[in-house]
Amino acid sequence: MSTQALQLGAVLYPGFEMLDYFGPLELFSVVGSSQIEIHTVAEQSGPVGAAIGSEGAIGPKVIADYSFADAPAFDMLLVPGGSGTLTELENPAMLDFLQSQSKTAQWVTSVCTGSALLAKAGLLDGHRATSNKQVFAIATMQSDKVEWVEAARWVEDGKFFTSSGVSAGMDMSLAIIEKLFGSETAEMAASYTEYTWHRDANSDPFAAELNVLAKQLGMV
Amino acid sequence: MSTQALQLGAVLYPGFEMLDYFGPLELFSVVGSSQIEIHTVAEQSGPVGAAIGSEGAIGPKVIADYSFADAPAFDMLLVPGGSGTLTELENPAMLDFLQSQSKTAQWVTSVCTGSALLAKAGLLDGHRATSNKQVFAIATMQSDKVEWVEAARWVEDGKFFTSSGVSAGMDMSLAIIEKLFGSETAEMAASYTEYTWHRDANSDPFAAELNVLAKQLGMV
Repeated sequence: MSTQALQLGAVLYPGFEMLDYFGPLELFSVVGSSQIEIHTVAEQSGPVGAAIGSEGAIGPKVIADYSFADAPAFDMLLVPGGSGTLTELENPAMLDFLQSQSKTAQWVTSVCTGSALLAKAGLLDGHRATSNKQVFAIATMQSDKVEWVEAARWVEDGKFFTSSGVSAGMDMSLAIIEKLFGSETAEMAASYTEYTWHRDANSDPFAAELNVLAKQLGMV
Repeated sequence: MSTQALQLGAVLYPGFEMLDYFGPLELFSVVGSSQIEIHTVAEQSGPVGAAIGSEGAIGPKVIADYSFADAPAFDMLLVPGGSGTLTELENPAMLDFLQSQSKTAQWVTSVCTGSALLAKAGLLDGHRATSNKQVFAIATMQSDKVEWVEAARWVEDGKFFTSSGVSAGMDMSLAIIEKLFGSETAEMAASYTEYTWHRDANSDPFAAELNVLAKQLGMV
């Protein structure tokens, strides 16, 4: 392990999902800034509004410290999902940023529909990955060269960690903390935040439930 | 139920805990802005930095839309905890704001050490309430006229909802959503966010664990 803190670039875009972003950042923050330094980054520095549900409305605004253009090379990327993903899939600046950062990053992580952005950028081709099952097609339609996993709380493959929807990002983050800093640190982070850690990456209680919902709605 | 959306004032201060704040806001946001409108408020409007663990370092910055002075009367208050609580306990502007808003608010809610601020403001006297068990004394030393509950995921008493540490705020928020909008809406919010809802307010898996930890460290 490096004596320097791991530099985490947490990507913001208009309509990001609040818990996709702040669940992982909470857990990474608990590890301590001597181990992980958190940086916020967006296409432009300054305020970026969160999604409000699936309505496309904009909620609380978080400040991006870096723009894509002036960001350093990060050791780890965090890409959240949210209703704004659909716009970002057509944003070359976002896709270019993910491609260029991923060349040198040790770890590239996503929550929910964040994996659709990684897939659209071509980064997941040849890899196993997952996404939010409720809107799984948003991810899977970005690339047929990805081995999309239909039931997983999160998937680890090489440098890539991709999680299912929203809260699943917290379980994935604890798995990353365990991998990088050991079980005791991950258990401390879960305990500190009074979070009941779902440790089994393959157990996905919401996949079945959401498939039933989708069928009822005639979506599949 | 009013035809107008419930106006939620979510209080920020330097060193607030990220998940205390954004866990509840995520769940409230899923209900939809036609039911709940989220507003950010701090002593001064503009950027407010989150806590990084317990170090007193400052992390991502969130924008307060309102200052205490120009905020409207909210229907519901959300008061997060975090390492910045200790400073706010000595901040008359914070205590005055909580007192004046609580006079008219229908619901006053806190996560983690947020209940210490409510207690210091005298709002919980004669009420049952809880807080983060790891640092329980920060809350209990603010008032001996509060019936402090040592093992509870959250406590509801009149207009007050107070929760245990960090993630417990999400379980409390789902209970509030259930109370205001019904079980189906709360279950939808949990499912949408793939969150395993701990529905039993009296079940506090972390209280015992944290007491053991505190004893090991000679804290109690």
